[in-house]
Amino acid sequence: MSGSSYVAVDWGTSSFRLWQMNAGGQVLGERRSDQGMTVAAKTGFASVLQSHLDALGGPADLPVVICGMAGARQGWVEAGYLDTPAHLSDILSAAVVVSGQPRDIRILPGIAQRDAAAPDVMRGEETQLLGALGLDAAREALVCMPGTHSKWVRVRGGMVEGFATFMTGELFSAVVRDTILSHAVAEADEAVDADAFGAAVAEAFAAPALSANLLFRVRARQLLFAGSAQAARETISGTLIGVELAAGLAEREHATPVTLIASGRLQRLYQIALERLSIPFNVMDAEEAVRRGLASAATAIWKN
Amino acid sequence: MSGSSYVAVDWGTSSFRLWQMNAGGQVLGERRSDQGMTVAAKTGFASVLQSHLDALGGPADLPVVICGMAGARQGWVEAGYLDTPAHLSDILSAAVVVSGQPRDIRILPGIAQRDAAAPDVMRGEETQLLGALGLDAAREALVCMPGTHSKWVRVRGGMVEGFATFMTGELFSAVVRDTILSHAVAEADEAVDADAFGAAVAEAFAAPALSANLLFRVRARQLLFAGSAQAARETISGTLIGVELAAGLAEREHATPVTLIASGRLQRLYQIALERLSIPFNVMDAEEAVRRGLASAATAIWKN
Repeated sequence: MSGSSYVAVDWGTSSFRLWQMNAGGQVLGERRSDQGMTVAAKTGFASVLQSHLDALGGPADLPVVICGMAGARQGWVEAGYLDTPAHLSDILSAAVVVSGQPRDIRILPGIAQRDAAAPDVMRGEETQLLGALGLDAAREALVCMPGTHSKWVRVRGGMVEGFATFMTGELFSAVVRDTILSHAVAEADEAVDADAFGAAVAEAFAAPALSANLLFRVRARQLLFAGSAQAARETISGTLIGVELAAGLAEREHATPVTLIASGRLQRLYQIALERLSIPFNVMDAEEAVRRGLASAATAIWKN
Repeated sequence: MSGSSYVAVDWGTSSFRLWQMNAGGQVLGERRSDQGMTVAAKTGFASVLQSHLDALGGPADLPVVICGMAGARQGWVEAGYLDTPAHLSDILSAAVVVSGQPRDIRILPGIAQRDAAAPDVMRGEETQLLGALGLDAAREALVCMPGTHSKWVRVRGGMVEGFATFMTGELFSAVVRDTILSHAVAEADEAVDADAFGAAVAEAFAAPALSANLLFRVRARQLLFAGSAQAARETISGTLIGVELAAGLAEREHATPVTLIASGRLQRLYQIALERLSIPFNVMDAEEAVRRGLASAATAIWKN
């Protein structure tokens, strides 16, 4: 490989993020697009990657380490799964080589929970965990990673013991786009209504079985009492997140703070939610976490 | 009016059902279409109704009694709401006349729960309740009316004391159509997989906070263990219905059997669910209930 710089890619279902890094972990260049797995599966993974590498103009033999859906069965090259309990360090040794490429390209595996009673899978989040907790993570952590498919993960001594995925983000999108509630939120802008959101979190957390009723009340409230589109949207969001927290926090032992790995708006919302429920937590930026995880992998693979 | 026959219409959001009845409550003719409120609001309510009356060829002055969304604000003529607690007999006296029509047309009101903490509305279900319980319903009932928007209603001595709407059916449609689970159910036919359904009901009933995780497991199960599209669909359905039952049945006092007002596939599913949870129940066909309720209204309005 050329010197000690490399390229790190977080290749999700619907997003593509690439960083050119030096050995010290500094970001030399960055690219982001919506050429996630869904798009790249049609246009070709190699050409999507090459177009971004060309744009950055790095050396032709710059090695690339990738995590996420590029390693799925429907992705570029299947990178398989480690099975729980899985040590975070095993991610590094299980990286798969993409053959027939002009440069060294590795894709990191996901983690599977092959438990017939609670089957689950992750791809990309394992790399965030590695970045957030570090290779020699000794402490016990309950990690919350919000998103389209939120993950709650129990880690002890660097070992992923078990995890659960919640379709919270995808349910939110489907509800505000494809149900009668789409009318209620039509005028909402991006501003956070922390009061409406926090109240909905607390109500759903206390009575998760009522979730489908709490959602309908958004419609009924507008019919009977009017109410803003903003409040409607945050009530929907808070209801779904409150239900997720009721299940996720049930896994919390003692008074361990929750490790929240999130960015942007979702980070803000989960912070408000955890504060509202008086749950202590630490926050790490999700993008920084995945970049650090990819840097760990690059260091281990290329000893640079 | 002409003799003692009349027309009864159940005009929902997406469906239109019409019966020509005689005074004894016998069905003389029937029409059904997908010209619900959504369609009729564009093409015109009067012309939709007239086309079905023409097809039946009844007398030009045949009176018509309507329940459902035709009485909504976005419907034909707004029929308002009775407020809880509302006696079922008040539905009859609050019917609204559609003016400027060549025949006598009445639309029955809905019921609203103007409680800022738990706002709710129904339109059409009040008429089903009237038909199922009767005008002089003395007993206490907890009524479950499954559907796009399932209703759970507490009735005592003919009085609707309170109710809750659950978006269960609409959530099911959105989840199987617009999320990653659409792939998992793509090949499913209409046959009921009672085992998969019952198991999902029991699991969600026991842990409603896990709902968004139980849904994701459908995807993970197919990835890790394969599994049929049929079982996937019934697991999604059972999960959502199990969560609804956890909230609905929490309202059940003593050992009162639940009154289930439902038809077809939904009736079958809710029966399996209630049996699985060992909850006693009585069943009434939803279509028969609404027809009986409309017949009560016709009798009261036209004394026929």
